Amino acid sequence: MRALVIDNGLRFEKDYPTPTPPRGEALIRVLQTGICNTDLELVKGYMSFTGVPGHEFVGVVERADDRPDLIGQRVAGEINAACGVCPTCCANRPTHCPQRTTLGIDRRDGAFADYLLLPYENLHALPDVVSNDQAIFVEPLAAACEILQQIHVRPTDRVVVTGDGKLGLLCAQVLAATGCYLTVLGRHTDKLQILARHGIETTTEPQTFAPASIDLVVEATGTPGGFETARRIVRPRGTIVLKSTYHGDMTVNLTMVVVDEVTLIGSRCGPFEPAIRLLANKQIEVEALIQARYSIDEGLAAFEQAATKGMMKVVITMNSD
Amino acid sequence: MRALVIDNGLRFEKDYPTPTPPRGEALIRVLQTGICNTDLELVKGYMSFTGVPGHEFVGVVERADDRPDLIGQRVAGEINAACGVCPTCCANRPTHCPQRTTLGIDRRDGAFADYLLLPYENLHALPDVVSNDQAIFVEPLAAACEILQQIHVRPTDRVVVTGDGKLGLLCAQVLAATGCYLTVLGRHTDKLQILARHGIETTTEPQTFAPASIDLVVEATGTPGGFETARRIVRPRGTIVLKSTYHGDMTVNLTMVVVDEVTLIGSRCGPFEPAIRLLANKQIEVEALIQARYSIDEGLAAFEQAATKGMMKVVITMNSD
Repeated sequence: MRALVIDNGLRFEKDYPTPTPPRGEALIRVLQTGICNTDLELVKGYMSFTGVPGHEFVGVVERADDRPDLIGQRVAGEINAACGVCPTCCANRPTHCPQRTTLGIDRRDGAFADYLLLPYENLHALPDVVSNDQAIFVEPLAAACEILQQIHVRPTDRVVVTGDGKLGLLCAQVLAATGCYLTVLGRHTDKLQILARHGIETTTEPQTFAPASIDLVVEATGTPGGFETARRIVRPRGTIVLKSTYHGDMTVNLTMVVVDEVTLIGSRCGPFEPAIRLLANKQIEVEALIQARYSIDEGLAAFEQAATKGMMKVVITMNSD
Repeated sequence: MRALVIDNGLRFEKDYPTPTPPRGEALIRVLQTGICNTDLELVKGYMSFTGVPGHEFVGVVERADDRPDLIGQRVAGEINAACGVCPTCCANRPTHCPQRTTLGIDRRDGAFADYLLLPYENLHALPDVVSNDQAIFVEPLAAACEILQQIHVRPTDRVVVTGDGKLGLLCAQVLAATGCYLTVLGRHTDKLQILARHGIETTTEPQTFAPASIDLVVEATGTPGGFETARRIVRPRGTIVLKSTYHGDMTVNLTMVVVDEVTLIGSRCGPFEPAIRLLANKQIEVEALIQARYSIDEGLAAFEQAATKGMMKVVITMNSD
């Protein structure tokens, strides 16, 4: 099958071996896949990953020996394949299973290929009203929903999202739905315009916010500058949700965190079903985030474009429905 | 009056001016005061404080013009003097009032003196069953209670306190009362012995704890090593409470905080009434933490001893009841 493969950089392979599903897993024909910033980091060496990247996909189940009901279904897929039996899994935290593999990120080939494998329980059937373009946003939108899964956002809260990247725009739309007083701090007026269309306040000027004035800051830049802004504007006993990973270690003034009794919460993968509901109900606009499309045969060019500064979502198409 | 004064180092003054209470504040004759690590830091230049340090005190109200009922009462005192009218105070967070002064720490003379001033609303009358020795622990014990004010500690939680300093020993006793499965990681067998007498598990060996195995870690060392241990042993979606301030900035791997969805919570001053109840009921042992006593005339020697490594509480006596 065709595949993009990371092994000291990224290459395109025409004849990568098509996988055979082990017991408990389905073979999925991939329709299309979005390029995530994590994919770009993997190409640079993050996680020392080798194999096929890609985890924001939509596909059709082609083989599922013990679950024939799944065959032919159009699905999104949760990316963490957990062991199901360890204490972490038994405590209902499968996304943190220490034995987990992760689709296209950690010891499991991903979605920039004609086919992929995932356990049956990772698959979520998509209603017809969710298009393929919407479907590739289920995974990142679930990650945005994770914020509401972790903390209680009150309708009266003053909330700021720092960062107008793809994840920032999704987090902003999910948070706006709570009725909170939301402002998004970004750098790109064209991206912020997508939110402004939905009545969400935006600014490019960090000084808009008084020090110690914000109840909740969602840090989605993944930069030291974004974190510093979050620290400056969060109020005493306020919360900073860390939604992006950071390059290497960061220098943090933890004494100020203690004195102001600030809460920092790391936030990663989230629940798929709410994300699918939000897309089915057209409550979240995602199509406007797609900026370019490529076939997998042009996959290297797609990654090159995705890596250009300020780029929104680049989609790679593998197969048609 | 007699006072210890910080002004480029610490000195003893025989004739420091006795303060006159402004409207709304009481004049308190100080009986005795404990030396806190924060006091030692202030002497070294922390907060650029000048004036009289000391905030862990017991005293008797000598003058209270609009509250004659307070006169003669033996009291402990909350250390943050808030403005009472700003948005932070109106939101019931007076300990975070941006205009606040702090007894013996920030623009307000403290308790290593014959007299001090505090607003009426900061004072808490002490029941007779709480001795003067117990009373100087009300403030740090309230800070330990703040943990339970901020987060829900479940009886089934696996909890570790890192650090066997004075605050660590108080946090441990407060946490043990929840019924949680508590272990204290310290360095001094004599200090850990105080906890062992109460049936609290202790260890001096960080490797006792498997990685990612602990629900809640209370970091009370204030050292990079303590924080690193906390990060190593906290489970995914677990919580680290930061109970100590840190020297300057610290380097933290925030990506691991994101991937493991860990919560970091800064924790500072806490509620006095629960602390007084716990002391009145003899649920917390504090007398064993007192290791030396000095009169205020020997105050400089007291500070010198308090600064020696591994020292427990040093008490300075100002006046008798």
